[in-house]
Amino acid sequence: MNVLVAKNHTSGGDTSEKKICGVLYGVGLGPGDPELMTLKAARLISTAGVVAYPALVGGDSLARSIAADLISADAVEVVVEVPMTVDRRPAQAAYDRGSAAIAVHLEAGRDVVCLCEGDPFFYGSFMYLFARLSQRYQVAVVPGVSSMNAVAARSGRPMVARNEVVTVLPGPLGEDDLRARIRAADSVVLMKVGRHLGKLKRVLQGEGLLVDAVYVERVGMAGEVCVPLGEAPETAPYWSMILVTKGADPWL
Amino acid sequence: MNVLVAKNHTSGGDTSEKKICGVLYGVGLGPGDPELMTLKAARLISTAGVVAYPALVGGDSLARSIAADLISADAVEVVVEVPMTVDRRPAQAAYDRGSAAIAVHLEAGRDVVCLCEGDPFFYGSFMYLFARLSQRYQVAVVPGVSSMNAVAARSGRPMVARNEVVTVLPGPLGEDDLRARIRAADSVVLMKVGRHLGKLKRVLQGEGLLVDAVYVERVGMAGEVCVPLGEAPETAPYWSMILVTKGADPWL
Repeated sequence: MNVLVAKNHTSGGDTSEKKICGVLYGVGLGPGDPELMTLKAARLISTAGVVAYPALVGGDSLARSIAADLISADAVEVVVEVPMTVDRRPAQAAYDRGSAAIAVHLEAGRDVVCLCEGDPFFYGSFMYLFARLSQRYQVAVVPGVSSMNAVAARSGRPMVARNEVVTVLPGPLGEDDLRARIRAADSVVLMKVGRHLGKLKRVLQGEGLLVDAVYVERVGMAGEVCVPLGEAPETAPYWSMILVTKGADPWL
Repeated sequence: MNVLVAKNHTSGGDTSEKKICGVLYGVGLGPGDPELMTLKAARLISTAGVVAYPALVGGDSLARSIAADLISADAVEVVVEVPMTVDRRPAQAAYDRGSAAIAVHLEAGRDVVCLCEGDPFFYGSFMYLFARLSQRYQVAVVPGVSSMNAVAARSGRPMVARNEVVTVLPGPLGEDDLRARIRAADSVVLMKVGRHLGKLKRVLQGEGLLVDAVYVERVGMAGEVCVPLGEAPETAPYWSMILVTKGADPWL
């Protein structure tokens, strides 16, 4: 069923005792609409014996909710509860615990399918598990549709063509830094808008780009908002985005 | 079957004569492995009565080959043959002809599913059809897995985390421009490497980034190459890519 063959893993100092470990799959789920999952993701999830996923403290998990219809009732679930704090240490400790819990299954020869919102390696928390486990175990990453591609599709704004440059900027960057980088690119994706919405609006307005910017939250999910940035709500959730397409190249 | 309802379209000056036009779907196929298609793409393609796709002059089409197993034997196929020339006019004329051929079906009330390699709005040729048809017809874009996400997954290199900046640069840019932009980003995706491979290697070597760069062609397809940039072949096909991850932020 799985494409990859688990590599041999030598346990402890006794080289005569070899065992076959499971494979860890980091599976991108796409931006939120379950139909934007890949066929490969759907196959791996629906046949998984062990499923792992990040969750807020308390257990709410967007990743699990996207994949919910595919998870087998018999599957063992490993919940990695990650506290959202500015201090990195509580989250680091959570990933340490999550990695240890996953490793128990891998050591026992069981594959683990880790559910990842969007694409696992594009601002995804999977890379923290990858950093902890990829030296010891075989890890296969299944890419997913990134939210930035979904935002361009949803808003009907082609992102880049020909020799254009696109830059992806996290909202927390400083105002001067943002301004210079926005000026230098043909298209700009602003991630993690959240409480930085006011600052980002101000910078884009100053650059005369308000008319070229679209604001999107919860793309493809219940409660989706997709409006010109000038009509954006006053407050934005953490995972909201802004797409700026200057359209310097007439796509004709 | 289709989620969207076709909007009414008034034909000519006679406002009493209304007809329902078909919907044009721009459907991302992902980077090449048919299993990296989304469930939505697979559904739309397998139920499509009319399928359109770009092809080289002569008819070879990577897009069609990715979706081949899903296309119904009864489907009408609209081939948009696009000449690869530096002069834009021959390609523009090809998209004019392709749009006209697609419009015939839309006018007759038939939906058209246009197959797009990767993501339709990320360096995709679909935007040329979109520019010609979206004023007159309802167009729905289904995002796909971008090759840059597939390259990160395949090479086991997390692309960006936390407050890092990623910049996507086309290979044809000038050497000084490339150097400045590569220096300013945490991660860099170099698209359309092709005949610019030598220049790109030189720039990255000058910046001390050769060790942080991976070269990939035909990701997830037969004949895939995925090697450290220092081991890249002498000549690269047009659609090859380089991913540079400086890893300034230790993902722990």
